[in-house]
Order: sequence, then structure tokens, then C-alpha cells
Amino acid sequence: MSKYVIGLDFGTNSCRALIVDISDGTELASSVFSYPSGIEGVIVDAADPNLARQNPADYVIGIETTVKEVIKKAKGLLSLFDPCNMIGIGVDTTGSSPLPVDKQGVPLCFDKKYKDNPNAMVWLWKDHTGYAEAAQITETAARMRPQYLAKIGGTYSSEWFWSKILHCKNVDKTVFGEAYSFVEICDWIPAVLVGINDADKIKRSVCAAGHKAMFNSSWNGLPDNEFLEALSEGLSPLRGRLYNEAYTAENLAGYLTKEWAAKLGLSENTAVAVGAFDAHMGAVGAGVSAGTLVKILGTSTCDIMVSPADKPLKDIPGVCGIVDGSVMNSYYGIEAGQSAVGDIFLWFINNLVPEKYGSTQAEKFKNLEAEGAKLKPGESGLLALDWNNGNRTILVDVRLTGMLLGQTLHTQPHEIYRALIEATAFGALAIIDRIEEFGVEIKEVVNCGGLAVKSPMMMQIYADIIGRPMKISRSEQTPALGAGIFGAIAAGKKNGGYDSVLEAQDKMTGTSRVYNPIPENNAVYKKLYSLYKQLHDAFGTKQWNGAMYNVMKDLLAARDEARRNK
Amino acid sequence: MSKYVIGLDFGTNSCRALIVDISDGTELASSVFSYPSGIEGVIVDAADPNLARQNPADYVIGIETTVKEVIKKAKGLLSLFDPCNMIGIGVDTTGSSPLPVDKQGVPLCFDKKYKDNPNAMVWLWKDHTGYAEAAQITETAARMRPQYLAKIGGTYSSEWFWSKILHCKNVDKTVFGEAYSFVEICDWIPAVLVGINDADKIKRSVCAAGHKAMFNSSWNGLPDNEFLEALSEGLSPLRGRLYNEAYTAENLAGYLTKEWAAKLGLSENTAVAVGAFDAHMGAVGAGVSAGTLVKILGTSTCDIMVSPADKPLKDIPGVCGIVDGSVMNSYYGIEAGQSAVGDIFLWFINNLVPEKYGSTQAEKFKNLEAEGAKLKPGESGLLALDWNNGNRTILVDVRLTGMLLGQTLHTQPHEIYRALIEATAFGALAIIDRIEEFGVEIKEVVNCGGLAVKSPMMMQIYADIIGRPMKISRSEQTPALGAGIFGAIAAGKKNGGYDSVLEAQDKMTGTSRVYNPIPENNAVYKKLYSLYKQLHDAFGTKQWNGAMYNVMKDLLAARDEARRNK
Repeated sequence: MSKYVIGLDFGTNSCRALIVDISDGTELASSVFSYPSGIEGVIVDAADPNLARQNPADYVIGIETTVKEVIKKAKGLLSLFDPCNMIGIGVDTTGSSPLPVDKQGVPLCFDKKYKDNPNAMVWLWKDHTGYAEAAQITETAARMRPQYLAKIGGTYSSEWFWSKILHCKNVDKTVFGEAYSFVEICDWIPAVLVGINDADKIKRSVCAAGHKAMFNSSWNGLPDNEFLEALSEGLSPLRGRLYNEAYTAENLAGYLTKEWAAKLGLSENTAVAVGAFDAHMGAVGAGVSAGTLVKILGTSTCDIMVSPADKPLKDIPGVCGIVDGSVMNSYYGIEAGQSAVGDIFLWFINNLVPEKYGSTQAEKFKNLEAEGAKLKPGESGLLALDWNNGNRTILVDVRLTGMLLGQTLHTQPHEIYRALIEATAFGALAIIDRIEEFGVEIKEVVNCGGLAVKSPMMMQIYADIIGRPMKISRSEQTPALGAGIFGAIAAGKKNGGYDSVLEAQDKMTGTSRVYNPIPENNAVYKKLYSLYKQLHDAFGTKQWNGAMYNVMKDLLAARDEARRNK
Repeated sequence: MSKYVIGLDFGTNSCRALIVDISDGTELASSVFSYPSGIEGVIVDAADPNLARQNPADYVIGIETTVKEVIKKAKGLLSLFDPCNMIGIGVDTTGSSPLPVDKQGVPLCFDKKYKDNPNAMVWLWKDHTGYAEAAQITETAARMRPQYLAKIGGTYSSEWFWSKILHCKNVDKTVFGEAYSFVEICDWIPAVLVGINDADKIKRSVCAAGHKAMFNSSWNGLPDNEFLEALSEGLSPLRGRLYNEAYTAENLAGYLTKEWAAKLGLSENTAVAVGAFDAHMGAVGAGVSAGTLVKILGTSTCDIMVSPADKPLKDIPGVCGIVDGSVMNSYYGIEAGQSAVGDIFLWFINNLVPEKYGSTQAEKFKNLEAEGAKLKPGESGLLALDWNNGNRTILVDVRLTGMLLGQTLHTQPHEIYRALIEATAFGALAIIDRIEEFGVEIKEVVNCGGLAVKSPMMMQIYADIIGRPMKISRSEQTPALGAGIFGAIAAGKKNGGYDSVLEAQDKMTGTSRVYNPIPENNAVYKKLYSLYKQLHDAFGTKQWNGAMYNVMKDLLAARDEARRNK
């Protein structure tokens, strides 16, 4: 009899439950629940576009709804399915998405007094209300604790833990004062399932702690009191009510409470793993291991790698985060990414593509793909920079913008669309080059996320530009699959699960389609990449100095050659 | 009793007749005739997008149709209108648009043998079939006769006289061999009206000769035989069948033939002036004189100035042409221009503006104007280069392309539209700066052409960027008005006309609306212009060397400031 796990994946607008057969990774059934609160699950404020909050009650309803439904589906598929063979649950979430809680770990917004106060809710990852506080944290750290910045690429983000807490302290003294602690939702949800009712006992994820809260064992955990007081008088007492230890997701958070087991129709022996972020668990679901780069291609991209923790690893300039254990035990997790990929294509389709390409977004996408795929590399004469939302890696600079060069009076939308895809691929190659330059070898690239499946043109262009095979993850639900894998490890071999990520991945993950680079395309793109890098370094770095006269000429020469060869 | 003239304006798709009262420039009536041949008057070849020809028979029908109609209209308006008071006719045309003719001046395509052969027709200005020959002419001149290039900005164009003739010789030996001569249509049409039936006796326009055929008195007229033989063996005998003299448009081509007078209902005493190009006569119609820059704003722009021929005038690097008498007697005509202006806006509207801005081109234009006009200078954070069709002045380089910089995920079409308009204004300012730098003072700027009337937003942006009042020509038909003025001069004072352009302009031309620069806008645009010039020089000149890091930062700073001040 097979053993099963449930991966619970909490996204921005909905959550998902996935049942996986741990013997071979078969995805038995899944169920999705859209959060009922706010607008598509996000509580917003018309007066402040930076505000994005979430109601934690949505997660609780989401668990019950989706788990009951997947189990029902599984029973329909396998008449012999026995919930007792459900050995573990793993949880991945967005982040940094901290939540103010009371001493018992109960969200402040569950108190009637605060039920309509967004500051008492989850501060969703994309909440940017703390942008001024983020700048203050970066400046203060640069002055007092430069080591804090070295591991996070040099700049503290408004999306991260301390920016949000500091902003809460600045704008809502009541909520800040009433909050016993702040808990990432990837930590809070497992705690709910296993019935922890003491905020001090909630196991905190090292993934969230290390990437977002400047937690590092080399400086004894969280930022020190002197630093916190420098940020804001009276902030340091919170430190003692947060955490001194952080855990990798292989760790057991606990077992399902009697109440949850009964409600969900599962056994009280179901292990629940410590949580982590979606990208990191997604990388595990896509088969990340030493030498494998996992690219999660969505509105933005997240690039995840691991490197054995017993070998020294240099800081890689411009790479957002290097955290021991953030992906799995005994490995450094390396996180890089591009701040806009799918978002650039969506911006273009929604704003600059006329109806002759179709009347809906989906039709426009389809026709742009069809027409764009007919073009040869270089044929459009266009070159773009992928900085419409700044550059996360390797320049770590939000104050950069997009650029399009080479347009004539004949330039067509599908040519620009293809140039934008190429720009994101050039950006991806720049990250790969940087990581390898600092001694982390990349032996394979596995792609997952919506775009990896939806756009064969994009994946071929990525293979041609990056010059390596682009493998596609077998699973289309890698974060939930990764969460399930950690559920199996939390259960452990003794309960029919696994004892390590690599052991579980060997059975449960894999790749499907592979896009191989076409040599003649790669040859053309090598020339274009050198032009991209020229623009990249010229507009993105202080030290660049040189000439630009060649750029338009070289693009026209490449265009003319592509047309001659057609 | 007032005296009247007719201006005949031959455009790319249609011709126009305009009756003007010479006492005050009142435009009595006009009539437009669309050429019946080809596609919108242009004979094209599906297999060769460079080919653009015209049927000269269309001009002949056009004259009869439009002149008869304007006279009928004039009679309807003024019951006392007497065609005997019609003292002169002037003709302006596109160019360089040469036509192979036989010894009698009859177009070869009027012969049955050649009636379907495009090579025997008019080689329209925008025919680019001679692009390889143009490159050969530039190379040969650079090697053998650099002085030929100095007056035309350094590069011989595929749109010009010799490129077309040489291409005809290369591809159609029969037509080339049968052609006694090649005549610009601005010379051929007056010759038809005055009944010249000897190709050697057709008066050639110095405007066409000087700007397009490398005709200059300092080297004894047309390029010499040695040069022509170097281009192509057997080309030089043609030189003797072209011309040794060229005339300004104040000169009389002759008087209407009996047949034409009868057909049109005019007197045989009607003087017909030597022809010239539309831009040059348009400048006269807009009131050009020393110190006045006339900008003709259309799909491209033509900038025309004059400088007294008795004062030495340096060659101005990058300015297309300086020709003694090409606009009027005793003045150098200075021609500059931008190879795409309205064409860039049309490209954008036709390709990259979705239907939320309207379902027709006109609606999109209207809404882009309305939304774009609400923006403050700098507010979009965008900056563009206006090189989608290369740069005619001051870089004289067709191998340059467009560029857009500063886009984010929120950039809207009307922001880009405004940035494109701004780019053309920055390009216009670069030309003005260059002309003044070489000692030609610009005291006023008069704008004419479709865009000057249709886009108040554009004209205000031009005033704000150029930092000078933008005057709008009173006439909306300046080429035809200019042609009429030359008709009045050909008639001369003795017949109730005028003896000079300045005398005629004093009565017949003027300006209407004036757009004055808004100081705070000009201040912002000065900063943006320095960024434009940085990109312009970096991408457009070999000698530039420097840093680029400031560009995106400065644009974002300007954007933030514009938004704060809103």
C-alpha cells in the first residue's frame, strides 16, 4: 500500500492542497480555494496603493475546504485509499508575510477590537507601505552592521519582515503595543495545525528568518538590540519575544491535533513539517540539488540553487540571499531572481498590443507567440533591457527602468514581444554567469512555474540564449509537491516516509520536456548578449565608461544577416 | 480689380490648385485631384518594396481638372471674377522625381512600347531602388570629388537624381538608351504648360539641380564626365543632354499655350514660373526670409532657411543642402530636416495603441492628445530618440534606429506618445543649435504643414522644448501659396504682379496663432534635453565616450519631482 502526503501551498490569491503518492511522485488530486476576503484575497486601501494585507482566517477555512475536497477526490479515484496512509503534511506560503499575534499565537485581528484594522492582519509579501523604513534599515545597517547586508545582496527591501514591523510601530502604536510577537504565515499555519498555543513555542523557518529577517548564526540570530534601538527607540524588547532558533523544513512542527484530524478525516499521527516559502519548496519539488539551478518563471522569477554547507561559499555580489538551510538541511540556499518577467509581457500585452492580435489577453498572447516564433534571432533588429521593475539580481537596484532600442517605422508588436522575452533571457544569463563566476557550478537548469509550460517559444529562446538545455519540471505544482516532500520527511522513514530531501526527490521529482539550444541561434544570440551586457553595464553600473556607437550598427548588421539567411 | 494667381502643388498622392488674391494673400478657392494610377497615385511592385513610380499623365489630367474647378468656384464666389486677371501660375512638386523623356521632352511611357514599363515613368522621390547606386556615388565622390559631398551633408541619397538614373542604366538598358534626357517633374510640368517641345530647352530648377543632382556653379554645373564614367562606363554622354544652366523660381518658364489657355479658360498672357520643390516653395508661402526658420511638419519635417548670398556662408556639417537660389534669388537656400516625425506617431498609433484609446486612427490620435496633454514635462519618466527612420540632420545616418527608455510596468500609451513628440522636438532643437553654431542666426520659427494645425499639444511642447515662440503660418496650403507667389513674380510688376519674393510675401503671407514657451516647462525640458543629447551623441557619433549611469536616475528624479509638483 502506497503512502501519501499533502502539500499545502498558500499563494497570493488562493491556496491549494495536493495529494502525492510518495513512492513515485504521482499527483493524485488537487483542490484550490480562493480566499474570500478583500479583492481576490488581498485587503487593499484605495488611498494607499502600497498597502496589501490578508485575513489569516482565510487560510484556516482554506485548509478545511481544500483538504476535505482532495481526500474526497482521492477516494473517488482509488477505492482503496485509506486516510491512515496519509503520513505527512507540508506547508509553503508567500513571504515575507508577517502577522502580529498575542501571547497565545492568536492573530490580533481575531480579536473583535481589531477585526477591521489592516495593521492587525497579515502584512502580505507585496505590501510596500514600509518603503521609507526599508531605506532607513539599509542606511543604518550600512553604517553600523555592513555584515547584515552582505548576505542579502546589499539592500533591505520594503517587502521584508523588519520594514513591515517598523512601519507598524511607526503608524499604529496600539497594534504594535498589543502584539506579543510577529509570526511569518509559513510558521503560523503549521502551528495552527499542530495546536501550538504559545507564541514562544512556534517553530520558525530558517528560510524566512535568514532571507527576510537578517537572521544568521554568525551574529547570534536576529539583529542585535543596539541595532534595533538605533532603528527605533523601544523596538529591541520585541527581539526577545521573536526567536533565537530557526528550523529547516525537514523538521517536525508536530502532529495534527485531535480536532484537525477529526475535521479533515485524517489520523492524529499525521506529521506536519516546519514551513518555508513557496519558491524554496518549489525548487525542491522541481528537483533542486547541488549543481541544479531551478528557475521559477512567473510574473517575476525566482532562481534557487543549493551549495553544500560543508564547503566554503563566498558572498556573491548582487545575489539576494545566501542562507544555510533555507532550501534544505546541510546546504546553503542561494536565492536570486528577476523582479519582472511575466509582468513585463503582461504590461506589454495589456497596454501596447492592438486588437488586430485578438480581442482578449489570451488571444493576444497566442498570436504574439505564433508570430514571434516565426522570427529568427536578430531579425527584428530590436534589443531591450528587462528592467521595467528594476533589477533584483545582479544590480540590486530598483531605480532602473526598461529600454527598447532598434525600432523602425516597420516594427511590429510581435517583434517587440519577442525582444522582451529575449531581454529576460539575457537577464537570466547574466545571473547564471555571475553565480558561476563565484564558484558555484551550474550543471543543469530546471524550469517550473506557469510560463515554463505556457510558452514553448520562450523556453526555446531561453535555451538558445543561455546555451544550455532548458529542462521543464515534470510537476506543474512544484511548490505544493515540495511541501508534500517535506511532509514525507517530517513523517520520516520509520513512518513510511523519507529521511532526506535527496532520498525523497529521487522518487518523487523529475523533468519532462527538454528544450535544447539550436547552435546557429546560440551563435547569433552570443553577439546580441554582448550588446545586452554593454547596455546593462552602461546604464546599470557607475564604473562603466565607453562608446555606444556600435550598438545600433551591430543590431542592424545582425538584422540584415538574419534576413539574408531566411 | 484684384489680380490673381494659381499655385499648382503636386504631392505624392494628389495635386492641388489654389487661387490666391495677390493683393492680400486671400485664398479664394482650392481644388484637389487624386491621381488615378497605381495605388493612391503610386505605381508599386509587390516584389520590390523599394519601387515607387508615377504616371505623368496623371499630372496633366490633374491640371485640367483642378484648374477648371477652382475657376468655377472662384466665379461662384465673386461674380465679377475675370480669368483675365489671372496673371500667373507657379508649380511646386515632390522631388527628386526624375522622368525619362525623348528629344521632344515627351515621357517615354507615353510611347505604347513603354506604357507598362515603370522604368519609363516618373521615379518618385520615395523610390529607393537605387540604394546600392547611392552608396556607390557616395563612395566614388568621397574618393574623387569630396567637394560634391560637402554641400549635401556628406551622403548621397537613394532618393536623388543620379541614384535613380544610374539604377535605370543598370537594370533597363533599353529605357536608358531610349531616354534622350531625364527631367524633374518640377521642370517638366511648367514645360508642358508653356508648350516646350525640345528637351534641351526645358528650364531646369536650381532647387532640384543643386539639392539633388550635385549641380554647382563652382564646379561648372553637373558632375564632370570623368566622375560619371567612374560611376558607370557610358554614363557621361548623358551629361551633355541634361543642362548647363539652372534657374530660380522667380524666372519665367513661358506663357500658357493657346491650347492650355483655351482648355482652362485662361488668357494666353498667363505667365508660368520655373518650378521648384514643395518644401522650398512652402517656405516662401510661410514667409521665409533671412532669420526665419520655416518648419514644414508632416510625415517627415523639412526645415528651410535662407541666408543672403552676398555674405559668405560656411558649410554646416550635417545639414543636407546649401544651394544658391534654391528658395529665392540672391539667397542661399538652407535645407535641413528630420527623416520621420509624423511617421513615428503614425507608426505608434497604427501598431502599438490598443482600442481602449478608440477604434479609428483619428479617435486614437484625439485621445492620445487629450491624455498626453495632461502630463507635465518629465512626469512619464520616459525619453526617446526620434530615429525610427534614421537621422537626416545633423548626423546624416540612415543606419540609426529608434529608442525608448524609462518604461516601467505602469507606462501607458499616451505617455509614450508624448515622449515620441518630445523626441522629435529635441531633434528639432539639435538642428537649430547646429545652424546657429555655424553663424546663421534664427530670429523666428514659423511652422506649417498638417501637424502644425492638427496638434496644439505638439506645438506647445515644441515651444517649451525649443524655448522660442512657435508661430503658425496663416495659410494651411503654404506650398500652393508659395507656388502662386512665384506665379505673381513670373508675371512681374508690369503685369500687375511683383518683382521679388520679399515684396510678394509682404502682402501675401503671415502667421496666425503663436505658442509661447512656458518658463517652468522649458526649465524641466532643458534638463531632459541634456539627457537626449547625451544619448544622441553616444549612439550617434563615433567620437563619444563616457558614462551612462546617470540617465535612468536623472529621468526618475525628474519624474518624481514632476509628480510632487502636480
